[in-house]
Amino acid sequence: MGLDTAPERIPAHLQGSQDAIFEFNRQIIDATVDLVSVYKPQIAYYGAVGAEDALARTISYIHDQGVPVILDAKRGDIGNTAEQYARELFERFEADAVTINPYMGLDAMMPFLEYQDRGVIILCRTSNPGGADLQGLRLESGKLLYEHVAEQAAGPWNQNGNVNLVVGATQPAELARVREIVGDMNLLIPGIGAQGGDIAATVRAGGGHQLMISSSRAIIYASDGEDFAEQARAEALKTRDEINQYRN
Amino acid sequence: MGLDTAPERIPAHLQGSQDAIFEFNRQIIDATVDLVSVYKPQIAYYGAVGAEDALARTISYIHDQGVPVILDAKRGDIGNTAEQYARELFERFEADAVTINPYMGLDAMMPFLEYQDRGVIILCRTSNPGGADLQGLRLESGKLLYEHVAEQAAGPWNQNGNVNLVVGATQPAELARVREIVGDMNLLIPGIGAQGGDIAATVRAGGGHQLMISSSRAIIYASDGEDFAEQARAEALKTRDEINQYRN
Repeated sequence: MGLDTAPERIPAHLQGSQDAIFEFNRQIIDATVDLVSVYKPQIAYYGAVGAEDALARTISYIHDQGVPVILDAKRGDIGNTAEQYARELFERFEADAVTINPYMGLDAMMPFLEYQDRGVIILCRTSNPGGADLQGLRLESGKLLYEHVAEQAAGPWNQNGNVNLVVGATQPAELARVREIVGDMNLLIPGIGAQGGDIAATVRAGGGHQLMISSSRAIIYASDGEDFAEQARAEALKTRDEINQYRN
Repeated sequence: MGLDTAPERIPAHLQGSQDAIFEFNRQIIDATVDLVSVYKPQIAYYGAVGAEDALARTISYIHDQGVPVILDAKRGDIGNTAEQYARELFERFEADAVTINPYMGLDAMMPFLEYQDRGVIILCRTSNPGGADLQGLRLESGKLLYEHVAEQAAGPWNQNGNVNLVVGATQPAELARVREIVGDMNLLIPGIGAQGGDIAATVRAGGGHQLMISSSRAIIYASDGEDFAEQARAEALKTRDEINQYRN
């Protein structure tokens, strides 16, 4: 479940609070923690408003419930800079896993991959309309770029066994192709909910296993009233049950 | 000039200060401001140690001297998240230009490009050893991936006339190829100094114009003593003079 918490979308009755972002997250977490396998805060929402402290407290609160955290950051830079990002995400914010961008190649990803007890989730085929602009380019080898990324991720990039991939729910055929390439690797799948991806098609294309199907806005903004946490729970339950229906 | 300020590399006599990062940057800026066309803080160094406030104050101090700021962040995400990053970089930190990653395609870059009075510097061919892992793949069309990025950047992606590209100094032949594709576009060129790129070859390959040749660690860590600012000035002067020598 994504925590893309934008201050302007927090219900009015919490807006007065000095600590509205953390309080919103806390109530959403309390209402859903028995349903959710992993929370995924999107760091951009916190960075936009200088809410690093609310982010750190949210992650710590999730850990207190015994649930892991993916910090969605999609970072990528040369080695010595990537070391600083890894330090920010894994040490300052204590993320259990992070998302990263492969465009700069393996040495730029190594500082993340070297944290052997953490997960590294590499962008492969993203859920946005322009996802294919580069990822769908056909290479001289006959493969598409995202297929090449999937092959590398399942092979030479995964020396520490901590590589996972991002594959959007909006392209089930391409999800099926990635599953074929990577076998049992964990896939993080955004794009259901507000982005319109279909759960049945996603579960089927993903092979029904090793899937982290993520929904954020459809759940956390299910209501903008005082019942927001209750409605978020209802939406999370519906999403979970729908996923499980197609798994079985 | 890059400001990749790592707390552990700040000279010992400043280490006691509550505000060592800003103070280090301020002295470096004071010593070099007449030599430098644009400062480029790398956000990862500030994020790693929770120094967002020192970063904001550094940028504000540079602006007070009438000098623009590139905030090196290499962000990239789907539209609604990219809007948050644009807000963080352009509004919270007031960057004049930012670096972004093209892997997710045009719609993921649009929230940055829509700031028509700001510069957007897209990764094309990066300076790190693994830069070619993806960027150097040959496409079915016969082009290399980075050439395709350069063509798109000079064409459909540049509707607002605010696109620039990152091309590393470590690959002069590829820099020359990008210059051939993009004409007069501004190029941000990291990779001289600590990364070993050659200034003469860089200036020549880049056509001698529209080049933002960046050095960071070689300048700001020229000395770890009390003379660090003076030594940074000497190194900046040497770098500028060498660039100008090959320009003329």
